[in-house]
Amino acid sequence: MTADTRFQQLAQELGHDFSGEIKIGGNYTPVVRDGHRLYVSGQIPRVGDEVLFVGAVGDALDLAQARQAAAICAMRALAFLQRAAGSLDTISSILRITVHVRCSPTFTQQSEVADGASDVLCRVLGPLGVHTRTSVGVLQLPKGAAVELDVIATVQG
Amino acid sequence: MTADTRFQQLAQELGHDFSGEIKIGGNYTPVVRDGHRLYVSGQIPRVGDEVLFVGAVGDALDLAQARQAAAICAMRALAFLQRAAGSLDTISSILRITVHVRCSPTFTQQSEVADGASDVLCRVLGPLGVHTRTSVGVLQLPKGAAVELDVIATVQG
Amino acid sequence: MTADTRFQQLAQELGHDFSGEIKIGGNYTPVVRDGHRLYVSGQIPRVGDEVLFVGAVGDALDLAQARQAAAICAMRALAFLQRAAGSLDTISSILRITVHVRCSPTFTQQSEVADGASDVLCRVLGPLGVHTRTSVGVLQLPKGAAVELDVIATVQG
Repeated sequence: MTADTRFQQLAQELGHDFSGEIKIGGNYTPVVRDGHRLYVSGQIPRVGDEVLFVGAVGDALDLAQARQAAAICAMRALAFLQRAAGSLDTISSILRITVHVRCSPTFTQQSEVADGASDVLCRVLGPLGVHTRTSVGVLQLPKGAAVELDVIATVQG
Repeated sequence: MTADTRFQQLAQELGHDFSGEIKIGGNYTPVVRDGHRLYVSGQIPRVGDEVLFVGAVGDALDLAQARQAAAICAMRALAFLQRAAGSLDTISSILRITVHVRCSPTFTQQSEVADGASDVLCRVLGPLGVHTRTSVGVLQLPKGAAVELDVIATVQG
Repeated sequence: MTADTRFQQLAQELGHDFSGEIKIGGNYTPVVRDGHRLYVSGQIPRVGDEVLFVGAVGDALDLAQARQAAAICAMRALAFLQRAAGSLDTISSILRITVHVRCSPTFTQQSEVADGASDVLCRVLGPLGVHTRTSVGVLQLPKGAAVELDVIATVQG
C-alpha cells in the first residue's frame, strides 16, 4: 500500500477531508523548498474554517483530545507535503517536528500529546516517518488552538 | 531598486538605524553559515542598548505595538543577513521564521503579530522573501521583550 | 586534547555519566541525519531515569540551577551527536540551538540560562561549537523539566 493510500485511509478514519483548500492565516506560505528539503509552516488543528480543538490542554481539553489535535496538525502538514512533492511516496525523511502544546500551568504530558502527531507520521510514512522532535508547553497559540506543529522533511531526488 | 536600498528606506521609515553595532547578549553568534544556508539567532526588538518593546502583548502592549516590535526583529535579522552575505540582493530565499510572542493568557493574534515581520521580509526581498512561519505565544522572553524572531535563509551561489 | 576527551572530562566535573543508555520518552528518535547535517531531538536534564531539574526557573529554581540544567541538556545532545557521528571530533559546526526555559512569569534571564548550554558546546568543541541561538521562556515542559534544548549540527565529510 502506498503512503498516499495510507494517508487517505487515515483521513477517513479521523473523519476529516484534507483534499480541498487548506486555509492558513497571514502573509506567509505553507511550504518552502530548498533543494531536497521542505519546510512546512506551523499547523493548527483547523479543518476548513473551523479550528477543531481550542483551549488549554489539562484544563478545557484532556490528553486524548490533545492527541487528536496533534494528529490533525500532522495530517495537515502531510497534506501540504503531498501537494508540494506530488506524492507522499516521494517523501524520504522527516527531519524534525516541533510541537507546541497550549496547556495549563501544571500539565506536563507534552510528549504524550506529540505522540499523536508522531503516530500519524509513522503510520503514513512507515520507517521513513521516524523523526526528531521537540515538544513544549506554551501559554497561547494562534486562534486559541490547542496544538501547533511544524515540520522539516526531505523528498527524493 | 535593490533590496539593500529598500532595507535602507524601511529603516528610515521606522526611524531606526541598523548600520552600527548590533548587540546580542550571551555566548553565541548572530549568524552561522552552512553551505548556502544562513541561520540567524533569535532577535528581540532592541535598537542600540534599548529594548523598544517590553511587556506582554494583549496587556501592556497592543497589537499595533507588537507588530512594530516584530518588524524591528525582522529588520535586525535582515541587517545580520546583509552583513553575513555582503548584500541583501544575494539572499535567494527565506526558508522559515519562528515568531515567539510574549502575550497575555487570552491573546490569540500571534499570527497577526507575526505579519509585522513577514511584511518587512516581503517588502525588502519581494517574492524571494515569501517564507514558512510558525508563531506561538510564550510566557516570557529575554529582557522582557514582546517578540523574538529567528530566521533561516539561503544565499545565492 | 580531543573533543571526545573534553566531553569525558566535563561529564566527570558535572558528576554525571552519559555513557549508558540515554532514555527518551515517546515515538521518535534522538538523531536524524540528512547529508552532513544532524538534527537532535529536544533534550531535558534527565540522567538515567531521573529528571534532575524540575520546576519553574525564577520560582522553584534559581539561575545557577537553571544553567546547570541547560548544561546537562547540552551534554545529552553531545552524547547523542557522539554516537551518531562516531566521535565528537568529526562535528564541524553547531548551526543552531533552541533553548526553552520553563520559568515564572517575571523571569527574563532566558539568555543567561542558555549560556549554561552554550558554554558546554564551546568548551567541548572549541571554535567549532560557536552557534546561533534562540532562547524563550515557556509555561511548561515535558515531565516538568526546567529546560529543554534541541540542536542542529554538521559533521565532516
